[in-house]
Amino acid sequence: MHIQVIPVEGLPIIHPGDLLTEMICERVTFEDGDILCLASSVYSKANGYIRKQDEIVASAEAVRIAQKTHEDPRFVQAILDETTDVILEDPFILSETVTGHVGVRAGVDHSNIEDGMIILLPPDPMGAAAGLQNEIARITGKEVRVIITDTCGRSFRRGQTGVAIGWSGMTAIRDFRGDHDLFGHVLEITEEAVVDEVAGFANFIMGESNNGVPAVVFRNCTRWTGHDNLHFNREEDIIRKALCKK
Amino acid sequence: MHIQVIPVEGLPIIHPGDLLTEMICERVTFEDGDILCLASSVYSKANGYIRKQDEIVASAEAVRIAQKTHEDPRFVQAILDETTDVILEDPFILSETVTGHVGVRAGVDHSNIEDGMIILLPPDPMGAAAGLQNEIARITGKEVRVIITDTCGRSFRRGQTGVAIGWSGMTAIRDFRGDHDLFGHVLEITEEAVVDEVAGFANFIMGESNNGVPAVVFRNCTRWTGHDNLHFNREEDIIRKALCKK
Ligand SMILES: Nc1nc2c(ncn2[C@@H]2O[C@H](COP(=O)(O)OP(=O)(O)O)[C@@H](O)[C@H]2O)c(=O)[nH]1
Ligand SMILES: Nc1nc2c(ncn2[C@@H]2O[C@H](COP(=O)(O)OP(=O)(O)O)[C@@H](O)[C@H]2O)c(=O)[nH]1
Ligand SMILES: [Mn+2]
Ligand SMILES: [Mn+2]
Ligand SMILES: [Mn+2]
Ligand SMILES: [Mn+2]
Repeated sequence: MHIQVIPVEGLPIIHPGDLLTEMICERVTFEDGDILCLASSVYSKANGYIRKQDEIVASAEAVRIAQKTHEDPRFVQAILDETTDVILEDPFILSETVTGHVGVRAGVDHSNIEDGMIILLPPDPMGAAAGLQNEIARITGKEVRVIITDTCGRSFRRGQTGVAIGWSGMTAIRDFRGDHDLFGHVLEITEEAVVDEVAGFANFIMGESNNGVPAVVFRNCTRWTGHDNLHFNREEDIIRKALCKK
Repeated sequence: MHIQVIPVEGLPIIHPGDLLTEMICERVTFEDGDILCLASSVYSKANGYIRKQDEIVASAEAVRIAQKTHEDPRFVQAILDETTDVILEDPFILSETVTGHVGVRAGVDHSNIEDGMIILLPPDPMGAAAGLQNEIARITGKEVRVIITDTCGRSFRRGQTGVAIGWSGMTAIRDFRGDHDLFGHVLEITEEAVVDEVAGFANFIMGESNNGVPAVVFRNCTRWTGHDNLHFNREEDIIRKALCKK
């Protein structure tokens, strides 16, 4: 059975309080085992994880960094408020968030929202994904897997790709440890970050601009086993250690 | 029209001289606009980009690095032979290849090949993708787009994902510069590395072990415009600059 990838079309502009899960369920007929990828931006708008820029008071630290990044100090303050560790201050802020995710501007954004408003990443994206999964089960009776996505840069390669911010009904990593290749050798590549591979393709379908497709459904994907240890911690990550010495 | 993702099943173990394109065309009915993703490992085996480890003579440099990485010095030599710049020597070799691709062990591998044999990345992956595209047009009369993939690590996030090594019939980056979001703001995220997003999902379908699916076809994907400047050069890449100071 071929895999199908279904963009969820026709969603309106989302605002706090909108019944986003209901709106998605009205536009797609879920089947058991489907994977729903949802843009974090839209999840955050529906759930009020947004801020008004002119209600933010910038700290001295935010003012200092804003001079280097040429951004509004209040926008920088919003980023710092989401940040547990600043890895790089300029040319752009690269920081770790409370979930262990490392991203440019801590995933804070002012695209696809009204002027003067800021979108934050969901504070508990794993809980968000689990909540969506439960709601969909309640509304449709179907057991759907969920990934919350964001668009994110990376090193060595230009351009952004979609990554997984939260997930439910699957593990982030497909673990091949102990598995064998076609010739019986024990595998060297053992941890495939499948949740990011699915999120990336969903992001390709969504696009970055005014496509209006914040949700994508994957049908007939395999299941896998593994673990959820997607984020390197500071000691494990060679590249991060090098950056911090800078 | 929904996107379909079709694994190419039933391919045998591939050896130098095998008519890989013919073998793929026998197993899938291509349509105009399809995207074929092909694992670089299989392309390299078919085209003889493999080496016998015991025919390699390790240099003093290879011996020195092999002591740190706990690998066979001849395997390290094969990696150095594919490398134009060593970024990191241990705990694993991270290096740039002639195409500008940065990868662990320069993409050199001894999985999914006979004992004592080594698989290299295709030396001209852009040419490889264009050649495949032409051959498929000749065999089937269809205009198919092609991506050559490899499995690759990344920073900040654990686990490997599929990335694009070569491509034809598309640009690597989808360029959103000058485009607007749903509220008319000029976009901040402007360069989406769509070729990696597609390669990543193909890699998810392939898996890393004995699945025997080195080729995946994507049907009904959009087309995009942009550029092919996928690899940061040394000066552009903040993270690489930090690593090199190490
Ligand atoms: N229908 C609808 N689409 C939206 C809305 N906000 C964003 N999108 C779309 O969702 C996709 C991803 O948007 P983006 O801002 O890049 O989200 P992010 O990657 O999570 O930061 C794009 O297709 C946007 O056009 C919204 O409120 N309603
Ligand atoms: N049928 C077939 N499948 C292969 C062969 N070599 C590798 N594969 C499959 O191709 C996929 C990717 O293999 P992998 O070694 O990870 O390739 P890489 O990611 O390009 O290094 C997996 O499903 C393998 O089982 C081969 O010679 N024949
Ligand atoms: Mn975002
Ligand atoms: Mn996005
Ligand atoms: Mn490989
Ligand atoms: Mn692989």
